[in-house]
Amino acid sequence: MSTQKQSTSRTPNRAYEEFQAFRADLNERILDRGTTTTKRFFTLDTKAYEAGAIDTKQKELMGLVASMVLRCDDCIAYHIDQCIVSGASDEELFETFDIALVVGGSIVIPHLRRAVAFVDACRAHAKSTDGGANDG
Amino acid sequence: MSTQKQSTSRTPNRAYEEFQAFRADLNERILDRGTTTTKRFFTLDTKAYEAGAIDTKQKELMGLVASMVLRCDDCIAYHIDQCIVSGASDEELFETFDIALVVGGSIVIPHLRRAVAFVDACRAHAKSTDGGANDG
Amino acid sequence: MSTQKQSTSRTPNRAYEEFQAFRADLNERILDRGTTTTKRFFTLDTKAYEAGAIDTKQKELMGLVASMVLRCDDCIAYHIDQCIVSGASDEELFETFDIALVVGGSIVIPHLRRAVAFVDACRAHAKSTDGGANDG
Amino acid sequence: MSTQKQSTSRTPNRAYEEFQAFRADLNERILDRGTTTTKRFFTLDTKAYEAGAIDTKQKELMGLVASMVLRCDDCIAYHIDQCIVSGASDEELFETFDIALVVGGSIVIPHLRRAVAFVDACRAHAKSTDGGANDG
Amino acid sequence: MSTQKQSTSRTPNRAYEEFQAFRADLNERILDRGTTTTKRFFTLDTKAYEAGAIDTKQKELMGLVASMVLRCDDCIAYHIDQCIVSGASDEELFETFDIALVVGGSIVIPHLRRAVAFVDACRAHAKSTDGGANDG
Amino acid sequence: MSTQKQSTSRTPNRAYEEFQAFRADLNERILDRGTTTTKRFFTLDTKAYEAGAIDTKQKELMGLVASMVLRCDDCIAYHIDQCIVSGASDEELFETFDIALVVGGSIVIPHLRRAVAFVDACRAHAKSTDGGANDG
Repeated sequence: MSTQKQSTSRTPNRAYEEFQAFRADLNERILDRGTTTTKRFFTLDTKAYEAGAIDTKQKELMGLVASMVLRCDDCIAYHIDQCIVSGASDEELFETFDIALVVGGSIVIPHLRRAVAFVDACRAHAKSTDGGANDG
Repeated sequence: MSTQKQSTSRTPNRAYEEFQAFRADLNERILDRGTTTTKRFFTLDTKAYEAGAIDTKQKELMGLVASMVLRCDDCIAYHIDQCIVSGASDEELFETFDIALVVGGSIVIPHLRRAVAFVDACRAHAKSTDGGANDG
Repeated sequence: MSTQKQSTSRTPNRAYEEFQAFRADLNERILDRGTTTTKRFFTLDTKAYEAGAIDTKQKELMGLVASMVLRCDDCIAYHIDQCIVSGASDEELFETFDIALVVGGSIVIPHLRRAVAFVDACRAHAKSTDGGANDG
Repeated sequence: MSTQKQSTSRTPNRAYEEFQAFRADLNERILDRGTTTTKRFFTLDTKAYEAGAIDTKQKELMGLVASMVLRCDDCIAYHIDQCIVSGASDEELFETFDIALVVGGSIVIPHLRRAVAFVDACRAHAKSTDGGANDG
Repeated sequence: MSTQKQSTSRTPNRAYEEFQAFRADLNERILDRGTTTTKRFFTLDTKAYEAGAIDTKQKELMGLVASMVLRCDDCIAYHIDQCIVSGASDEELFETFDIALVVGGSIVIPHLRRAVAFVDACRAHAKSTDGGANDG
Repeated sequence: MSTQKQSTSRTPNRAYEEFQAFRADLNERILDRGTTTTKRFFTLDTKAYEAGAIDTKQKELMGLVASMVLRCDDCIAYHIDQCIVSGASDEELFETFDIALVVGGSIVIPHLRRAVAFVDACRAHAKSTDGGANDG
């Protein structure tokens, strides 16, 4: 089944970069060819997470919990990345996972497995990027 | 369809009390007759929203967004009530609604309508309870 | 369960009017108090069904099939009304129901029952409105 | 929200009879006006629960668990009724509820509440029918 | 996550052929070993898209919108292929994508990305097949 | 789309082992770093399938039907494995598939294809393990 393909042998860093590359490439193709409605939807999607009465980190954690209970791996990956960029700690991520697990049930577990693998990929990527910068 | 039954003529306060009464009555019957697994699940469900790295208000807003994208009216009502008890403002509630709306799409709108009606029921209930207390 | 409340004794015409009244009332309250994101989402939702390469009747039938497989009674009611306003025949509605039934499975059947009841409510409403107009 | 309408004051027996009456009435209207595809789907739906390598009671419990995780109240009510007709005990029903609860998460709880209320309605109906027969 | 595996380096044509080969192989194994119910369901599934009051292209676009809001990549791929075979233009496909996006929300976006990639795979396959035919 | 990656050329036995290895590795990482809530949820998840008024094989078939209608490939794979370990025959598995197909609709079919491929992987693995044991 799908995790069979997500080989544990692939380096987490590689996984992170492939995810971002596919996402960026296809978003560009969609915005190139999509209608005004498509484009406006993408704009609204960005706008919903901007800081307001609730700050961005908290909104990204809400986007993560929504993605987990709806069980969309790519959305989970995207929001994990954004949560980490916004400064979420592992404790905050795991408490968010718990809410998703309790609300959404055991059907969420396979996505939780991939989510935990992706948290590690994000942390590894951040480290390697820092390393690269420091190399200079 | 279902909203037809949610008459606009019923007072919001009445709606709030009926919701709580049905919920309390049936939860009691479930915990009376349910298995150990049922009972432990109910305990876990409470535990997931306790303050930790993330505070309770924020966890309740996350429970609300999860309930909205999964489109469960009673769960939405329950979390709106808990959000308000935890001090959530209308601004925070509406920004939470927006995340649910953008993630979950227009299929969320009928639930959003009932959510907004229930926010008013909660606020009306709080006011009438205060009034009652002050009457003494 | 929920259909128990949808009494067969209520006249279809009354059901139609209550549905429209609740919907209009709450939409107004949402647009009054909602954020810019909320308002833009509602605008996009209208825009998606405007005639383009695909005409409005066909888009409404697509909105209906989407609402049925996602099992949202109010969305189904709304799109049935719009399909009928756009000139959809009962044959077209039932072929749309079939696609929803085959794609979405028997879990769609309770919604199909309420959909068929609402088709009758719409037709009855149209007739009574004509009658009323002619009465003048 | 929806449970507000499911008044605890209505007798369980009445709830049972209204559910069956609405279901029977609309199924008849669907089969009257539906296409060959609609009719064949309804036939398949019946056929899937006939005894084979797995007996009927067990298949109905499987229909119940599927209905609960997909969160369809009318499907839950229908399968609870069929489970009881096939001889399922309350212990079997509650163990089935547990699987649905653990797989589907806390979002299932409001449906569990209505399910437990409907189990009581079915048992009350069975008793009153026996009583009626004995009255003769 | 799953898109990581959908390498952008694989030629679209190869992706199209692998999809069709896996689908054909497994459908054969299912129909070989499945019950009468399984077989009848597969027959009904084909029948639902036959031209009637609504033509086949429109029914395939409806199958596509249903598959997108239910977020099933293989169903989306299958219906995109059938839409294109039935003569759907890119404009019609993108307006269908918009309805799915607005009804289903941002959770649909990762599937939209893979859908757009598959549209390109179908168009590339059609071109290469024409080329092959012309080679003769 | 996703099935493109599930190459038919990979041996079923390999697929089985990769699935189990990824699952075991990540479960360990989750239980290492997860909260008390996470751990208790995992315990409850195991407990729900223990023999009681309903035996384990039957509960696993119920877990399978729930996983199929909720369309989670990894959950389907896990429960197929457990069903086979508990002694489920192919006839019982296919009747379970039928209930899932009829309740959940054609959207279940891509998961049914992968389920049938995984049944074969489990049977092949069982055979190869026996062979290895006998080799000793």
